[in-house]
Amino acid sequence: MTDVSEHLTATGKLRAVDPDWQARVQNSFTQQSVMSLLGARLGTIKPGYCEIALPFRQDLCQQDGFFHAGITSTIADSAGGYAAYTLMPVNSRVLTVEFKINLIAPARGAQLLAQGTVRKAGRTLTITLVDVYAVTDGQKNLCASMTQTLICLLD
Amino acid sequence: MTDVSEHLTATGKLRAVDPDWQARVQNSFTQQSVMSLLGARLGTIKPGYCEIALPFRQDLCQQDGFFHAGITSTIADSAGGYAAYTLMPVNSRVLTVEFKINLIAPARGAQLLAQGTVRKAGRTLTITLVDVYAVTDGQKNLCASMTQTLICLLD
Amino acid sequence: MTDVSEHLTATGKLRAVDPDWQARVQNSFTQQSVMSLLGARLGTIKPGYCEIALPFRQDLCQQDGFFHAGITSTIADSAGGYAAYTLMPVNSRVLTVEFKINLIAPARGAQLLAQGTVRKAGRTLTITLVDVYAVTDGQKNLCASMTQTLICLLD
Amino acid sequence: MTDVSEHLTATGKLRAVDPDWQARVQNSFTQQSVMSLLGARLGTIKPGYCEIALPFRQDLCQQDGFFHAGITSTIADSAGGYAAYTLMPVNSRVLTVEFKINLIAPARGAQLLAQGTVRKAGRTLTITLVDVYAVTDGQKNLCASMTQTLICLLD
Repeated sequence: MTDVSEHLTATGKLRAVDPDWQARVQNSFTQQSVMSLLGARLGTIKPGYCEIALPFRQDLCQQDGFFHAGITSTIADSAGGYAAYTLMPVNSRVLTVEFKINLIAPARGAQLLAQGTVRKAGRTLTITLVDVYAVTDGQKNLCASMTQTLICLLD
Repeated sequence: MTDVSEHLTATGKLRAVDPDWQARVQNSFTQQSVMSLLGARLGTIKPGYCEIALPFRQDLCQQDGFFHAGITSTIADSAGGYAAYTLMPVNSRVLTVEFKINLIAPARGAQLLAQGTVRKAGRTLTITLVDVYAVTDGQKNLCASMTQTLICLLD
Repeated sequence: MTDVSEHLTATGKLRAVDPDWQARVQNSFTQQSVMSLLGARLGTIKPGYCEIALPFRQDLCQQDGFFHAGITSTIADSAGGYAAYTLMPVNSRVLTVEFKINLIAPARGAQLLAQGTVRKAGRTLTITLVDVYAVTDGQKNLCASMTQTLICLLD
Repeated sequence: MTDVSEHLTATGKLRAVDPDWQARVQNSFTQQSVMSLLGARLGTIKPGYCEIALPFRQDLCQQDGFFHAGITSTIADSAGGYAAYTLMPVNSRVLTVEFKINLIAPARGAQLLAQGTVRKAGRTLTITLVDVYAVTDGQKNLCASMTQTLICLLD
């Protein structure tokens, strides 16, 4: 599905303006304390794209034993946020303005994989699409999809 | 602000059809393992209404030290879900179909308080509005607002 | 339901900064050519609040003879946008960033009434809640609810 | 961009269950009276996919002379709804439960083109993604993106 991210981007191939975008994103991810509470890991990052994986744990669930929709949303929100942040300048901060998530199928599986793609990177606002898959034995099942608006704040 | 919940409800005062709705909701909340991971507590519940509180902890944050938007979403999703579940029959299950959340102000404070209100309870689908406040020293500051669609599944 | 708008506003009673906000909003509404195509009328406006009414017409419908969800959205989007615009300064423009609408009940009735309320007015972004009622013989039935993000552009 | 629709679908190539799906969709489109008020035309339809085009007209605009966001939403809502309806059985009706739309760029151009794709077709609920392009002289510019939930009602 990785190729879809290129089709989805409104303005063709995206380029990072900050040469140190990769370290900047990884550093910010490390500072999101909730990621280590949940056990989430940063995966592939490219300009305008970010993956986050979350292995299953019993203490991340709702009442039926699936990943809680809020936990699915947490990694999706960060995946979209960091996809956007790859394209932002040095000395910028990124905040989520809003997101909407459709819970498409029960989020059960060995792990969740969130794939965030920038659809439009504006000077102030960035729009992303984040798909979340439940992955078991290499089988990917789309379980949620998020659209998100982020704002770039300059220090 | 509690009175707002009555104004918001489309069809006037809501009534529970299951006499044991309170125990059913509390029981389900206990089974949401992620609530105890986060330290979230069930507050006031009434037919069509549910509160969840979440004290601040360093390990629930994003990179700036505020509650992560996904964590805010997690308690909001449960508050709306249980507001809906108060009105559902015995032997029903509730699942989130989708939600959208606006992050209105930085979620910083001693605790978050999510207040979920049913706006329309249908046989299959229920619509809620959930406001989340950052609360410090009794001061409430609206930091997020969610609209949510839930589905009732009968066993 | 008008009183709800005061409860909904995050920061208490809202004040317009432009003394000519009323003429500015009415003037902009007149320039929305689609409003006269549809037959929509501007109703009550107050700082942070705007109503738009739309009488039923056969050519505004979907396949079942109800108001089309997009038409419901059109007056809701303008009601929220002008609620926001009442609070913006002279020489500003308002654009919708995004909205989400729940279609809560079939939109059938003698007219639709959209009531837009500002929940948070920021310098750049404003958040609104817009409820749409189907009104027949003075009976109001909530048929849709929208949350919306708007951006203020300064010329 | 048509190829994206295949990548976007959660469960691979979609198949219609009603052999007369094409006539059923075209017939329903004709009954949406608002489509002819606006001048919208049904374009390519395939199982799980639907296009609607809308030529520019002065009376479809907001105050800056762009297509009104509600009008963009109207054709997007129908494009997603009919993408879903291609897969529904005989004697079914389709209604929108909710949608969320991001207005990504000003909707100005010779026409709008909405492309609706089913991402998950369930027995009761269907989830779609609808992209809307502003098209001028064969140049396509993504101006809006919608995610939508629809419900299938059986008569």
